[in-house]
Amino acid sequence: MIEYKKIIDKRLIELFNKKDLPYQILIDAALYAVDTTAKRIRPLLILSCVKSYDQDISIAIDPACAIELVHTYSLIHDDLPCMDDDDFRRGKPTLHKKYPEWVAVLTGDYLLNYAFEIVLNIKNLSEKQILELARTLSKNSCNLLAGQTVDLVSENKKIDFETLNFMHLNKTASLFVAAIDFAAIILNLDSKKRENLNIFAKKLGFIFQIQDDILDNQSVDNSDEILKKSTYISILGLEKSNTVLSNLKQECLNLLKDLNLKKNYLNDLTLKIFERTS
Amino acid sequence: MIEYKKIIDKRLIELFNKKDLPYQILIDAALYAVDTTAKRIRPLLILSCVKSYDQDISIAIDPACAIELVHTYSLIHDDLPCMDDDDFRRGKPTLHKKYPEWVAVLTGDYLLNYAFEIVLNIKNLSEKQILELARTLSKNSCNLLAGQTVDLVSENKKIDFETLNFMHLNKTASLFVAAIDFAAIILNLDSKKRENLNIFAKKLGFIFQIQDDILDNQSVDNSDEILKKSTYISILGLEKSNTVLSNLKQECLNLLKDLNLKKNYLNDLTLKIFERTS
Repeated sequence: MIEYKKIIDKRLIELFNKKDLPYQILIDAALYAVDTTAKRIRPLLILSCVKSYDQDISIAIDPACAIELVHTYSLIHDDLPCMDDDDFRRGKPTLHKKYPEWVAVLTGDYLLNYAFEIVLNIKNLSEKQILELARTLSKNSCNLLAGQTVDLVSENKKIDFETLNFMHLNKTASLFVAAIDFAAIILNLDSKKRENLNIFAKKLGFIFQIQDDILDNQSVDNSDEILKKSTYISILGLEKSNTVLSNLKQECLNLLKDLNLKKNYLNDLTLKIFERTS
Repeated sequence: MIEYKKIIDKRLIELFNKKDLPYQILIDAALYAVDTTAKRIRPLLILSCVKSYDQDISIAIDPACAIELVHTYSLIHDDLPCMDDDDFRRGKPTLHKKYPEWVAVLTGDYLLNYAFEIVLNIKNLSEKQILELARTLSKNSCNLLAGQTVDLVSENKKIDFETLNFMHLNKTASLFVAAIDFAAIILNLDSKKRENLNIFAKKLGFIFQIQDDILDNQSVDNSDEILKKSTYISILGLEKSNTVLSNLKQECLNLLKDLNLKKNYLNDLTLKIFERTS
C-alpha cells in the first residue's frame, strides 16, 4: 500500500509542476497544501478497489488525485478563521497561516475547479465513463458541502441522531463513496456490484467518522468539546458508539466477502482503517 | 432582451426551489445571492447567440444559468473581508454581511459545484456536447481564478501592460468566452465559426473591463484608486484607453458582420454593452 501512496504523492506534485506563471502564488499554495503527510485514504480506496479486480491502476491515478484535491480544498476552507479557525494541520501551519487568507480561499476554489478539469480530460476512458466520473464528483462534492454546512450550523447546539447521521454521511462518507464509485466506473462493473460497493463505501465512511469522534474524545484538546459539537459519543455515549462501530465493521467485511474480489487489496485497506489510531 | 432576462431570473430562482433541508441556510444564501438586479450579461450572451442563429433557446437556459452561478460565486468570494472587503453589492448587503462569513465561503463553493452539476446533467444534448460544455466551464473557471489572483497580487503595485492584459483577459473575458463557447457547442457550429465567435467574446470581455476601468475612474469613490490597482487608465491614460476601446468595438462589429448571423440579437446586445453607463 505504501507503494501506491507514493504513486499518488508523486502524481499530485506533478500536477502542480508549473513555473513562472502570473498566478504562480496559487500553484505554490496548492503544492504546499497537497504536499503533506496525508494518509491519502480516498485515492488508496480507488486504487485498491481497482487492484482487487486485478486490473491495471494506471488509468485510475488521475481520478484518484482529483478526489484528493476535492478533499484538500474542503480542508483548506474548513480551516479558515470564519470556520474551524485552525492554525495547524498535519503538523504544519494551515494554508491561511502560511499565506494571506485570500490565497487560501482562492486556492481552495482552484483545487475544486482543477479536480473537475482533471476528471473531464482523462485519457483512455469512454465519453460515457468520463461523464459518469464527473457527475459522481459533482454530486458527492455537493453532498460534502451539505455535510460541512450541517456541521457548522450544529455548533453549540444539540442535534438529533438523524441530523448527526446526515452530517456524517455527507461530510465524511461522500468522498469515500465518490472514490469507490470512481473505481466501479473505471472497472465498468455491473449495477449490482456497483450498488454493493456503494453501500460498503457509505459504511466505511461512517466507521471513519465514528472513529474520529472516539479519537477526538480521547485527545487532550478535544476540539469537538471546545466547539460544543454533537458527536456519536455525546449523543450515544462511548459504549453504544463502540457497539455501532463493531456492527458496521462486520457489515463492511460481509459486503466485501459477497463481492468475491479477486485480490485482497480492498480488504487489507479496510482492515488498516479499522485499526487506525490517528 | 428584457424578456430573456426574465426567463433567466425565473429559472435561477427555480434552481434553488428547495425547502426544509438540513443545510437550508446554504440554499437560502444562494437564493439571496442570485436574486438581484444583476444585468445577466453572460447568460444573455448565450441566449442571444443562439437566437442569432434562429434556434430555440430552451436548451440553452440551464447552461446560461450555470455560467451566471459561476459568476455569482466569484463575486461572493471576491467580496469577502480577506479580498475586496465589500459591504454592498448591487444596493444590498454582500452575502457575508447578510449571513455569517462561513456561509458566504461555503455558498460560493456550492454555486461552483452546482454549476457543474447542472451542466453535467443537461437533457437533450449529446454526451459529446455535455462533455464539451463541462470542459469549457472548468477551463474558463480556472482562468477566472488566475485573473482574480493576478488582480489581488497586483494591489499596491505597478504592473506592466502584459500582466494587465492577462488579468483582464482572465478575470473578465473568461466567462464571456465560456458563454459564447457554450452557445457554439449547443448550436453544433463548425470550427471556423467557433473560432471567430471565441475571438469576438474575448474582445467583448476586454471592452467590458476597460469600460469598468473608465467608469470607476469617473466615480466619486474610486475603489481602484483606493486599492491602488493598476488599470487601463493608470497605465495608458484616459485618452489612449478610449482609443483602444473604439478600436476593439469596431473589431467586434466586424467579426459579427463576418459571421453572417441570421438575426440581430447578438449585435443588439453588443451595442447595448457598448453604450453601458453602469
